[in-house]
Amino acid sequence: MSRRTKQTYDYGQKNLCVLLDLDQVLADFEGHFITKFREKFPDDRFVQLDERKGFYIKDQYEKLDRNLGDKVRAVYIEKGFFLDLPEIKGAIPAAREMAAMDGVDVFICSSPLTEYQNCLSEKFEWVEKHLGPEWLDRIIIAKDKTVINGHILIDDRPYINGSCKSPAWKHIVFTAHHNRHVEGRQRLDNWTDGTWRDIIEDFKKRI
Amino acid sequence: MSRRTKQTYDYGQKNLCVLLDLDQVLADFEGHFITKFREKFPDDRFVQLDERKGFYIKDQYEKLDRNLGDKVRAVYIEKGFFLDLPEIKGAIPAAREMAAMDGVDVFICSSPLTEYQNCLSEKFEWVEKHLGPEWLDRIIIAKDKTVINGHILIDDRPYINGSCKSPAWKHIVFTAHHNRHVEGRQRLDNWTDGTWRDIIEDFKKRI
Repeated sequence: MSRRTKQTYDYGQKNLCVLLDLDQVLADFEGHFITKFREKFPDDRFVQLDERKGFYIKDQYEKLDRNLGDKVRAVYIEKGFFLDLPEIKGAIPAAREMAAMDGVDVFICSSPLTEYQNCLSEKFEWVEKHLGPEWLDRIIIAKDKTVINGHILIDDRPYINGSCKSPAWKHIVFTAHHNRHVEGRQRLDNWTDGTWRDIIEDFKKRI
Repeated sequence: MSRRTKQTYDYGQKNLCVLLDLDQVLADFEGHFITKFREKFPDDRFVQLDERKGFYIKDQYEKLDRNLGDKVRAVYIEKGFFLDLPEIKGAIPAAREMAAMDGVDVFICSSPLTEYQNCLSEKFEWVEKHLGPEWLDRIIIAKDKTVINGHILIDDRPYINGSCKSPAWKHIVFTAHHNRHVEGRQRLDNWTDGTWRDIIEDFKKRI
């Protein structure tokens, strides 16, 4: 094991740069959405978590009932929605441990809603509250994640496109109900069984 | 001149990726700061624009009078400060023209204040108001700009450091009063004399 401190390592050789998506990787968007949707619209049909399919919740609800789209949107654009997201199990200790590893830089890479008014500052507040103020400088907000440099992007969105056709990062799909049908992809299924450490160690050898 | 449309060009070969800083490159932070500071604290000493030196306004005011730091901060963290920033002369038509050029992708790359509460959504609102809603997807918010990919970063901050010691971009210093003392750097002095086009054409040849 290396005896070099994080600081000397940083200057000595290239660090592994890991980009962590926020929603549904660190923060439980989907679980909180169902709770809030049922509170707000108790008489409407809803999609059980294990029936979720496709990245956009709104699209699936609209297939169920075309009038549900606006209600779905009303839930997640409401003030406080992002701030109140619970943590994905094990995500916060894993992110802290990863950021403390020798030769690893961690950033949080999150795409804003089109309705950006509440979500931008609430994403920052969430990170400050759950990870601490020193993590604020590690936040990257970008709709187009292909322009962000890094070796790994851990993200639940199965297809990530943008202006750069060959992004620097390798995408690891973080498993969620909505993406479990997507085959043939390198995955991280959870933050609790320790497999994330193997992925990091494997990539450290490759750079 | 190329007859290819922007769209076919995008898929045909690599585009030049230009990152434009927001404050003091597109939006006149320094000029608006003086106006607001003098309105709010008419009896205090202030630094004339052509006497500005060093990146942080607060540092220079504190040298003038150690009690001015908090007043400086109060000006730019106030709700509405970012939203009301005037345009840097010629910046908006230049940004639009650049984004419409064949083989050029333009992003706005801005660092948030530590006091992020108002500035995040106001930066988005500013871009929506001055450039249009289609530009919202081109915004990248990052404290550490060294992690952002791109061929050129046009930024008034003379020294840009971060976790990546060799950023992908070449930094072009956008001239401001506070950085005019910095020597030996490739510069863009303004958006009005057309020299920005020469820089873009020159870099397009190099990629």
